Amino acid sequence: YGRFGLDYNDGNSKSMTDANYNGVDKTSITSRLRVQFDMSAETDSGVAFDARLRAQVESRDNVPGTGIFNGARFGVVYEGLRVNVGNIIGAVENTPGVYLETRTAGIGIDGAGFVSHVGNVNDEYFNWDAYSSAGAGSNGVEALYSINGFTGHISYSLDNDILNFNTAGTLTSVTEGEDRFGIMLAYSWEGWTFAVSHQNSGNMWEDKTIVTGSYDAGNWGARIAYADNDGIDKWGIYGNVDIGAASNLVAFYTDEDAVSATDVAAGRSDNTDATGNGGEGSSYGIHYSYDLGGGASFETGYRRASNDNDTFQAGVYFSF
Amino acid sequence: YGRFGLDYNDGNSKSMTDANYNGVDKTSITSRLRVQFDMSAETDSGVAFDARLRAQVESRDNVPGTGIFNGARFGVVYEGLRVNVGNIIGAVENTPGVYLETRTAGIGIDGAGFVSHVGNVNDEYFNWDAYSSAGAGSNGVEALYSINGFTGHISYSLDNDILNFNTAGTLTSVTEGEDRFGIMLAYSWEGWTFAVSHQNSGNMWEDKTIVTGSYDAGNWGARIAYADNDGIDKWGIYGNVDIGAASNLVAFYTDEDAVSATDVAAGRSDNTDATGNGGEGSSYGIHYSYDLGGGASFETGYRRASNDNDTFQAGVYFSF
Amino acid sequence: YGRFGLDYNDGNSKSMTDANYNGVDKTSITSRLRVQFDMSAETDSGVAFDARLRAQVESRDNVPGTGIFNGARFGVVYEGLRVNVGNIIGAVENTPGVYLETRTAGIGIDGAGFVSHVGNVNDEYFNWDAYSSAGAGSNGVEALYSINGFTGHISYSLDNDILNFNTAGTLTSVTEGEDRFGIMLAYSWEGWTFAVSHQNSGNMWEDKTIVTGSYDAGNWGARIAYADNDGIDKWGIYGNVDIGAASNLVAFYTDEDAVSATDVAAGRSDNTDATGNGGEGSSYGIHYSYDLGGGASFETGYRRASNDNDTFQAGVYFSF
Repeated sequence: YGRFGLDYNDGNSKSMTDANYNGVDKTSITSRLRVQFDMSAETDSGVAFDARLRAQVESRDNVPGTGIFNGARFGVVYEGLRVNVGNIIGAVENTPGVYLETRTAGIGIDGAGFVSHVGNVNDEYFNWDAYSSAGAGSNGVEALYSINGFTGHISYSLDNDILNFNTAGTLTSVTEGEDRFGIMLAYSWEGWTFAVSHQNSGNMWEDKTIVTGSYDAGNWGARIAYADNDGIDKWGIYGNVDIGAASNLVAFYTDEDAVSATDVAAGRSDNTDATGNGGEGSSYGIHYSYDLGGGASFETGYRRASNDNDTFQAGVYFSF
Repeated sequence: YGRFGLDYNDGNSKSMTDANYNGVDKTSITSRLRVQFDMSAETDSGVAFDARLRAQVESRDNVPGTGIFNGARFGVVYEGLRVNVGNIIGAVENTPGVYLETRTAGIGIDGAGFVSHVGNVNDEYFNWDAYSSAGAGSNGVEALYSINGFTGHISYSLDNDILNFNTAGTLTSVTEGEDRFGIMLAYSWEGWTFAVSHQNSGNMWEDKTIVTGSYDAGNWGARIAYADNDGIDKWGIYGNVDIGAASNLVAFYTDEDAVSATDVAAGRSDNTDATGNGGEGSSYGIHYSYDLGGGASFETGYRRASNDNDTFQAGVYFSF
Repeated sequence: YGRFGLDYNDGNSKSMTDANYNGVDKTSITSRLRVQFDMSAETDSGVAFDARLRAQVESRDNVPGTGIFNGARFGVVYEGLRVNVGNIIGAVENTPGVYLETRTAGIGIDGAGFVSHVGNVNDEYFNWDAYSSAGAGSNGVEALYSINGFTGHISYSLDNDILNFNTAGTLTSVTEGEDRFGIMLAYSWEGWTFAVSHQNSGNMWEDKTIVTGSYDAGNWGARIAYADNDGIDKWGIYGNVDIGAASNLVAFYTDEDAVSATDVAAGRSDNTDATGNGGEGSSYGIHYSYDLGGGASFETGYRRASNDNDTFQAGVYFSF
């Protein structure tokens, strides 16, 4: 698909007298073009093999990018069971009820930082195994099983150790490769969906548990989500409603707790200092979408993050 | 398309006793393979959205490259109006009558430096916003409107400032991001085409005005072009003629003025010192093409640049 | 095609007390996804032009990669004659009877180092011009001619010199660019194939001569190969046999001679010191394949290299 539009971000400034001067105009073009290659083969016994590869071009904060391929994901499918290796989806990433009901899965044209996600707290954003459209991804292995509205998903990834040598070639230290284990269970029944997921990580501050519940009535929906992010609680409420034949409105409100002083003393980032990606307290946003037909839509949204960063975006999305 | 052939360039030398020794054989393979991805979607109201992405592999001066994607260009089209964002065409780049009437738009197989373009002077080549097939491009926005032989085109791009920090993390200096504004007007009528374009740039020595006029009689054509490149005049005359059913001959002559001493004192490159890409005075070249059918053609050309660099190239072009 | 599986390699270790500790688990995912773009055009006179480009994603030793394009190969074809430029095949690479009769052309899922190839000795692996699926390749030119079971192939490539400058900008030394010339002759007749190839290289220790003979009876085959790798002899015997309708077994044994003391004194690597890619003596391996239908197969193989490195791999291959 393609999407492009304008992004107003008050975290950028081209005025040298501003405290947050970074040389980037507050208003810039945000765009993405994604081409997906899906390949598959089916054996005589009904087992199917498939692979997915994406090429993606992004422009953000007025920094244009060139197209890049991501890492490949390989899958084996047999009836309700799927086993993937490589650039895996990830069990926590795959939890129903954590992303917004918009085409970006966030607010605006590029998601605007995905502050509505209850797993994103402090400056620890996206610290779980997830499919990467622009990088190599997690290089893990995962199994998914679906039957009668029930979905189970487990995933595992392990990084290599990083060996550090001095100039004489002697091994001086080792950064141990992290491993991450994730599990997700979800159940859907007549518009209701409940899900719970958990990640156990070898990295610091990455253990997390997410619980979500949602109801989809067709032309409106409501949702709640909660996460314990290794001691930092975050919860959110979300609603969406169709307006007439072509319009849709999505709104959210989240509240994020402060990090404990013990964790900060142990080296964790301090979200009570409201800078960077972090910042405790409330975030909220609203998104409006208008269907233009032919796979294209107008999308616009505003959100305020808990660190008081404001963004407003408007543009178009189209499928091909 | 694909194109490949041999390039003789007397600016290269593999003989260590030569003054211009650079380790590259005078004769080398020059080649390019380009794959273009065009995607589009049309809304119910007749507005169309599209995107273009290219993957390109080049080999020049015996340095083989691997394939790379460029930056994407997104467009909105409604009747005669087109608005593009991202890797834009650029108003000055889009001026009719500046490139040669060959498949390369220059001489030989890879354009041979495009010395015939009146906007290329001194060592300031391609210093205007232009679509990039191998890079991210200008990240600009532009509007084009066409009606009854008339075309108008305006384009704008703005770079981010570059912030320089010392090792203590203090901001020491700022390189301001350039902005470039371009405008082009063209009119075609019964074989005649007239065009004028102008670029206003925040960078030094980049303001330029181009004027062209051409006549295309079908089996022959003639063209004149003039540019004021921030004080350096360059003009050119161009002719092309079909020979029999399959052959075509293109020739050009250009003359470039010297840079003013005031500009050199202010830091501008000195084209009176006949080295590098620059060099004042005359350039000339001739190109011969033979149509092989099936989208393939034999292409060969010789040109002498104003800095006395000679190149001769021969090879084939094919479409797929 | 796609392929993925598990690789057990006793050269890797995640236990810091091991002598060969490198932070990589002995068991890791090995995978590759390859997409090939073939383009062509045919002239009115029957001469055809074509080009080949590949995009490939690899994961080895638990290091996931993103997709990359390789360098392009361009070809001109007329009846039995083909001339290629760019990322050429290479005459020595194209010798029949040097690779295993498996889908990887080696053992297991990713070839397991291709120790069965008689041209791979010491730590001088793949030191001949060969098509590169993940890099720019040789940037050479080659001609192939086939008629009535006979194939002749010559190839040539020349690298640019590398110029080294000191900080004052003075040229201090030059690394001369290598040239490689290769020739290959092969003849096939009623299941028998004989081939001989030779490379003459401007690089040290790269001159080599390969001789192979093989017989293919349809459901079984046998093969011998010998190479003189600039003084290091290596020979191998190979056999393959179908088992039932869907299974196939391939096995090999090779023996590599020690490098001469004179060469080691002159700076050549010493394969008698059994480390790295090298190691003199015998290598052997066995590979089992089971056809799953629909272009997919299960592939597994074990091999011991002459440097006592063991690998075992199992996984699947599929075409699309």
